[in-house]
Amino acid sequence: MRWKKYDKDAPHSYTFGVFPTLELLRYQTLRVVEVILHSQGERNEGIDKIRALCQHARIGCEVNDRLIERLSPKENTYAIGVFQKYYPKLAPTGNHLVLVNPGDMGNLGTTIRTMLGFGVDNLALIRPAVDIFDPRAIRASMGATFQLAFQYFESFDAYRAAFGAHHVYPFMTDGAVSLPDADFQPPFALVFGSESSGLPAEYHAYGMSVRIPQRPAIDSLNLSVAIGIGLYAATETRS
Amino acid sequence: MRWKKYDKDAPHSYTFGVFPTLELLRYQTLRVVEVILHSQGERNEGIDKIRALCQHARIGCEVNDRLIERLSPKENTYAIGVFQKYYPKLAPTGNHLVLVNPGDMGNLGTTIRTMLGFGVDNLALIRPAVDIFDPRAIRASMGATFQLAFQYFESFDAYRAAFGAHHVYPFMTDGAVSLPDADFQPPFALVFGSESSGLPAEYHAYGMSVRIPQRPAIDSLNLSVAIGIGLYAATETRS
Repeated sequence: MRWKKYDKDAPHSYTFGVFPTLELLRYQTLRVVEVILHSQGERNEGIDKIRALCQHARIGCEVNDRLIERLSPKENTYAIGVFQKYYPKLAPTGNHLVLVNPGDMGNLGTTIRTMLGFGVDNLALIRPAVDIFDPRAIRASMGATFQLAFQYFESFDAYRAAFGAHHVYPFMTDGAVSLPDADFQPPFALVFGSESSGLPAEYHAYGMSVRIPQRPAIDSLNLSVAIGIGLYAATETRS
Repeated sequence: MRWKKYDKDAPHSYTFGVFPTLELLRYQTLRVVEVILHSQGERNEGIDKIRALCQHARIGCEVNDRLIERLSPKENTYAIGVFQKYYPKLAPTGNHLVLVNPGDMGNLGTTIRTMLGFGVDNLALIRPAVDIFDPRAIRASMGATFQLAFQYFESFDAYRAAFGAHHVYPFMTDGAVSLPDADFQPPFALVFGSESSGLPAEYHAYGMSVRIPQRPAIDSLNLSVAIGIGLYAATETRS
């Protein structure tokens, strides 16, 4: 079977690189269709691990330099995992992160890594939103995507209809409470808008809006940084 | 005078884009050599502000599409500021951020934005380190660089020799104290290693090493995110 460049409407996607491919094989073994290797990666320690995982799970593993060069946008890609897309559900009692209209693949991937770092493993994406299965988003997450539950919703109201018991904390530059004073009650939903425009004013009404205290010297923090600070503060425990 | 593509050894650098050029004109007026505009940006509100600032400060402002297209790596650049590089000194009693061997322009720019957001306006860079005046780093900072004091040092010991009174907090994944329990005494120096390798073990001896508590699900946080969390926690005040 010959694979084509990533298409958001296709039923499969790709991991580009050894590390994300290892994460795919570890956490979504049953979704893997096959693994393609580059002959120049033969001495890479990660490639040995990939071969072992494929053999153990009886997943096809082929060396095909031309196919890798055709599929991957970057040079020096030594491994590509081909996998079936899948559609998990959010844990009803877990803490959630909600991204309203996320537009940047890099920020999305970085955010997924941060979520796992702080044990918040459920991500709601409110449309319009970037494609979590786009290989660029998976690469930016370094494969952390494969440990995550995620779900798309047509609107924030649709999310609320599905998870009405969550305590909602919209992060807004004019939020009612300063982050160090916020008291996060589980299960919580931390809500962030897009990099360019943040959340519209009506989000104040959805819950206790939170502001990250910051100097007027800059317009706003980078979205990935703001989300990291929110996740840290909401899950912070002192000993 | 005809300008050439950015060269790290040249005495001048560039801002690419309307927003960074405005920040340059506002905060480093005396360093600006001239401003170049693109004819397609004529209806841009920021361009009117650039023209007004140039006129007020008697800075040359020329429309030259071909020069912009030759200098800028991206399309749709409507303004370029040409400026003399300058070499500030760190404030001896201010709080510092210290980056040991930073290697990524994007992370550096994002970090500068975050620093200003939390009122930490002094950045020490330990060589080898990326060039803070590279237009890519300036673009990633959205021009926040022009509000910052920064200084390069040949080694961490050279930094310590210059600023021995600062309380040093090296951020390490095996730090002695967990971030929520850390007590940051001003003036402080928060110290971060590179994205790929972090700080070497000897940094434990330089001060009270701090770890950001995180799950083993990921290797480590993105460097910009970790720095953002450190800056938030170190400057946090409850009402």
